[in-house]
Amino acid sequence: MAKIKVGVAGYGTIGQRLADGVALQGDMELVGVADVAPTLAVRALYEKGMPYNLYLASEDRKADFEALGIPTCGTMEDLVKKCDVILDSSPGGIGAKNKELYARLGKKAIFQGGEKNSVADVFFHGYANYEKGLDKDYLKLTSCNTTGLIRSVDCLDRAFGIERVAITIIRRVADPGDYHRGLTNALQIDKAPSHQAVDLMTIMPHVEATGILVHTPVTHGHIITVVATGKEKITKEMALEAFKKHPRIRVVSIKDGFMGNASLFKYARDLGNSRGDMYEIALWEDSIVETGDSIMYAINIPQEAVTIPETMDGIRAVMGMQKTSQEATAKTNEYLGIGKWKK
Amino acid sequence: MAKIKVGVAGYGTIGQRLADGVALQGDMELVGVADVAPTLAVRALYEKGMPYNLYLASEDRKADFEALGIPTCGTMEDLVKKCDVILDSSPGGIGAKNKELYARLGKKAIFQGGEKNSVADVFFHGYANYEKGLDKDYLKLTSCNTTGLIRSVDCLDRAFGIERVAITIIRRVADPGDYHRGLTNALQIDKAPSHQAVDLMTIMPHVEATGILVHTPVTHGHIITVVATGKEKITKEMALEAFKKHPRIRVVSIKDGFMGNASLFKYARDLGNSRGDMYEIALWEDSIVETGDSIMYAINIPQEAVTIPETMDGIRAVMGMQKTSQEATAKTNEYLGIGKWKK
Amino acid sequence: MAKIKVGVAGYGTIGQRLADGVALQGDMELVGVADVAPTLAVRALYEKGMPYNLYLASEDRKADFEALGIPTCGTMEDLVKKCDVILDSSPGGIGAKNKELYARLGKKAIFQGGEKNSVADVFFHGYANYEKGLDKDYLKLTSCNTTGLIRSVDCLDRAFGIERVAITIIRRVADPGDYHRGLTNALQIDKAPSHQAVDLMTIMPHVEATGILVHTPVTHGHIITVVATGKEKITKEMALEAFKKHPRIRVVSIKDGFMGNASLFKYARDLGNSRGDMYEIALWEDSIVETGDSIMYAINIPQEAVTIPETMDGIRAVMGMQKTSQEATAKTNEYLGIGKWKK
Amino acid sequence: MAKIKVGVAGYGTIGQRLADGVALQGDMELVGVADVAPTLAVRALYEKGMPYNLYLASEDRKADFEALGIPTCGTMEDLVKKCDVILDSSPGGIGAKNKELYARLGKKAIFQGGEKNSVADVFFHGYANYEKGLDKDYLKLTSCNTTGLIRSVDCLDRAFGIERVAITIIRRVADPGDYHRGLTNALQIDKAPSHQAVDLMTIMPHVEATGILVHTPVTHGHIITVVATGKEKITKEMALEAFKKHPRIRVVSIKDGFMGNASLFKYARDLGNSRGDMYEIALWEDSIVETGDSIMYAINIPQEAVTIPETMDGIRAVMGMQKTSQEATAKTNEYLGIGKWKK
Repeated sequence: MAKIKVGVAGYGTIGQRLADGVALQGDMELVGVADVAPTLAVRALYEKGMPYNLYLASEDRKADFEALGIPTCGTMEDLVKKCDVILDSSPGGIGAKNKELYARLGKKAIFQGGEKNSVADVFFHGYANYEKGLDKDYLKLTSCNTTGLIRSVDCLDRAFGIERVAITIIRRVADPGDYHRGLTNALQIDKAPSHQAVDLMTIMPHVEATGILVHTPVTHGHIITVVATGKEKITKEMALEAFKKHPRIRVVSIKDGFMGNASLFKYARDLGNSRGDMYEIALWEDSIVETGDSIMYAINIPQEAVTIPETMDGIRAVMGMQKTSQEATAKTNEYLGIGKWKK
Repeated sequence: MAKIKVGVAGYGTIGQRLADGVALQGDMELVGVADVAPTLAVRALYEKGMPYNLYLASEDRKADFEALGIPTCGTMEDLVKKCDVILDSSPGGIGAKNKELYARLGKKAIFQGGEKNSVADVFFHGYANYEKGLDKDYLKLTSCNTTGLIRSVDCLDRAFGIERVAITIIRRVADPGDYHRGLTNALQIDKAPSHQAVDLMTIMPHVEATGILVHTPVTHGHIITVVATGKEKITKEMALEAFKKHPRIRVVSIKDGFMGNASLFKYARDLGNSRGDMYEIALWEDSIVETGDSIMYAINIPQEAVTIPETMDGIRAVMGMQKTSQEATAKTNEYLGIGKWKK
Repeated sequence: MAKIKVGVAGYGTIGQRLADGVALQGDMELVGVADVAPTLAVRALYEKGMPYNLYLASEDRKADFEALGIPTCGTMEDLVKKCDVILDSSPGGIGAKNKELYARLGKKAIFQGGEKNSVADVFFHGYANYEKGLDKDYLKLTSCNTTGLIRSVDCLDRAFGIERVAITIIRRVADPGDYHRGLTNALQIDKAPSHQAVDLMTIMPHVEATGILVHTPVTHGHIITVVATGKEKITKEMALEAFKKHPRIRVVSIKDGFMGNASLFKYARDLGNSRGDMYEIALWEDSIVETGDSIMYAINIPQEAVTIPETMDGIRAVMGMQKTSQEATAKTNEYLGIGKWKK
Repeated sequence: MAKIKVGVAGYGTIGQRLADGVALQGDMELVGVADVAPTLAVRALYEKGMPYNLYLASEDRKADFEALGIPTCGTMEDLVKKCDVILDSSPGGIGAKNKELYARLGKKAIFQGGEKNSVADVFFHGYANYEKGLDKDYLKLTSCNTTGLIRSVDCLDRAFGIERVAITIIRRVADPGDYHRGLTNALQIDKAPSHQAVDLMTIMPHVEATGILVHTPVTHGHIITVVATGKEKITKEMALEAFKKHPRIRVVSIKDGFMGNASLFKYARDLGNSRGDMYEIALWEDSIVETGDSIMYAINIPQEAVTIPETMDGIRAVMGMQKTSQEATAKTNEYLGIGKWKK
């Protein structure tokens, strides 16, 4: 069977990881990536010997690439024409503009969380609503926090039925290497409810969700605490058993040395993962407590890489490669090496 | 009526503020403060012209004070003898040792949160269990987070009855000026439940409490999110009305410019408050959301000064100065200027 | 002799401190302050009971002040008319626009470091070039780093003659309470030479200066290391003796507990200084080392308050209140309480 | 020719990277690594499938490894016996104790910067004093800052002759993932001169060095500014040309996007380097300025990996694999892929 041809528009923090993720899928082919300027990410691609083909998102700056000797393969339009589906990880708002090109050339596209929901037919999560994305033209992925949060809530929901969640998001404010945003010695609170809670309800309409978000001056993973209320009482043991079975949830504990988000970043680097990335969310076993009939727990969201698996699931959905979430996520997990470490 | 004579043992971050707080109480007299070494706090006292009498917590280092020309008035025992009650803000564990001296001289004492509960007859909060502290010899104050948290939960409890709370503490990891502790670009999670939730249950035994604590690399106030479940449904309007009436809760909003803990620190400095301190906790109006029958909200805890008013309340309790929480807290608030800004 | 009438345009971080500084000068009168909106600083002024008269920098937002019950005394033009000199601490660029008003009404003005040099007749420092500012109409103050740096270099220059300095500025990136700028877990380097070195040469044209600036994610004082080359060799003892005599330089040592910029911020708070501010730069005795015939040392710049004394000096210059730097700085120091702590 | 057999004692931040470095040397064989407990680094090794053999640094905790199913190959003594040379990256002070074992078994060893100089025959740097390490039994490597600093000073020294340097070290205070140390919103200054300047003089006795060190709350590379005085004037062009030729110095510029230490960390991750590491120091072209006859510049020190190449050089020295610095560093560079990116 022919491999699905995939392109990546926007070779930034997410775009680089999408390209790597596609390159690892045995049933997909990475046609190339596009960007507007010779950013550090593009320079790194060049220094690595151009493992991926590079296209010009805008011809205006072609001379900048040429001056550095960085080879390009054509325009963005050239890239799109060769693809079955485009992963658009352009800066927020550009994706909506790019969509005109995709539509004109009759190509499917998957947008990241920075775009408005209206850009897509379906607001998508590989576990929680895979079937809604089947054979659609345009998907929008949930943002990093929402993607990881839904993994854990969907996990409990499938096992026990969830009625309500109240979340506190302790948000990392910048990525490692960011200089265009930051916060210094300050916590910043957003108007409640947080958009992540609202987004969860869009994807899982049978769950009532609300929450508060506080930005913190760190660059590694977000930490979210969740108070989840089930249809019946969920004990710590019940929750833990369900979480441990989920391929994209890594149950860790403080006593083993996982003291916080920075431990997980370090651990992923020490695993030899590319860029020190981790696809799984972590869930602290020692954080789980019962409150009335509800269960409370804390998770870590590795913001740079967490949406990559669900985006691969999205390709499988729009191309109809697998018909169910279970089959699709299993394929994605296999190719990305997710869950290998589980017994 | 003679003023109550008060001494402060341990002139550090808390001790300095306790001394200032006592000096403002019209019905108390600050006899003096004691410390072991010419720390920066002691040097600042000297540079200010010795507004408070200074005693030697240990005679071993008398020469260090003399070398700097800093005058002292005698030993710790001299100080204790002159006092009716001692506020012990020594480093954790030293207070228990000091208690032997207080007991030998027949003096009452109030310990801060760093000591073990067993050091005292009563684990005390000025609003939630004032009457239990009446005429006792030894009190231990709740820690900064617990003190502020209880203010808000007790406020709702008096108005509507509270059955259960689930909290997420986003803890500032160091005070401004600290070099002996710190965290750099990392969030750190503690084993759940947090001690603050456990402590709340000790003070308010009819409330079930649990929670998760995450340390963050900032030096200004802690932020706590609370999911509180009442005996009946509490709406946002009901909660807000109750919070606005509480003298030690300052209701603020993001749209007015209170963007986080750092805004509150700056605001207190701009108010001209000594040391830029704030006695009130802040509660964000824009953070209040309903979740099922529960109410969720976020508060800011100014860790350096928040326990000062409740400690003044504690002096009133052990000395029997006022018989009820309402009378005692009103006196404390009047002398500290708390609530003046309320209409 | 009639007091000099002074107004402050822009009641932000610097403007608040300028107003406080003027209010302390026995030979000046603070007519009032102007701002465009009810910021947190204005709200704090209101909560304190309006110790200063407030004028509307723009009439457009008068309703916003009225809605909060904050009284105002008129327009910016009303304020300027009543003043002999205006201290303009508006956001960068606004000062140049305001200058039209000052010129039309024939009033003198002193601008802060955010404006372009061309806004003023003289780029001014109270010690290094006071006489150039005498009776001029418009001065621009050096920025916080340059002001503090020049204090130390001018001090050595007067004592020994300085030919050359090479500086490394470790710059705090935001003020406490800032949410509009910040940096998270990153050092950022600027193109060399830093503007502070260039500015120093404008003020002290006989000194060759260059340097490198690195931004750091902290909110307290900048630290600058200086390699200064004299006309002849300057020993550690010679430099230290000169620094100790300077009223606006506070010589401190690590062994006394001054471990860095945060110790100084804490110390100023513990001194009871308004807003926890410090007017003096600190110079670490234990940082001074000799390198060839040059001397190397480190200073701390308390960025929020350091330019206040030199701005008061500026008022004295433009109004011809004192004819020499020595007389003017002595008056400023006396009223601000600078140098009291020196033997 | 038989490969040199190398073991690593202490599988922490440096030990992991030493092991990786040895594994890449075509003329060396990594016999194994030893550690005392199943730390996160050991767990990562296990999760990766045990690419390296693991030995027990202490038999006391064997049960802890067994409980996790982590296979071990024997004791530390077993490891040492099989090796020609041991790289000791144990916590500071342990190396000196381990030396007794190495001596008893007649094995050579190379210690890291945390040990006292007295542990070794020679305090070593691969470029600056390679020949002194030839055929010695025990070397101690310079620390991360000193290693990188010396690369740049030695580079200028070989080209032009250097007489004197004055450095300012802006030190990152913790590594990514560290929870045992940190600093929050504070700069901390050390007593001058910094040990790095003193260490430089030990390695390069003909250079006079001094400097000031300031700790900053970041986890990525240290930044050092250097004022270097040559035997004759060194211009910016002369310095730049020399730096560009050095294999272990990467000349970068702000205008290309290298805005600070975090850009370099990100770039190394994007290069796909294991753990996101970089062996080269970076030197900002836009930081170079002339001051009198001296040259000033800024470098970035990637603290986790910078000493790895010089340690490989050290193995070459003690084993007499190459007779000159030039031959040895060329071999190390070749195997580590250093300088490939240079034209």
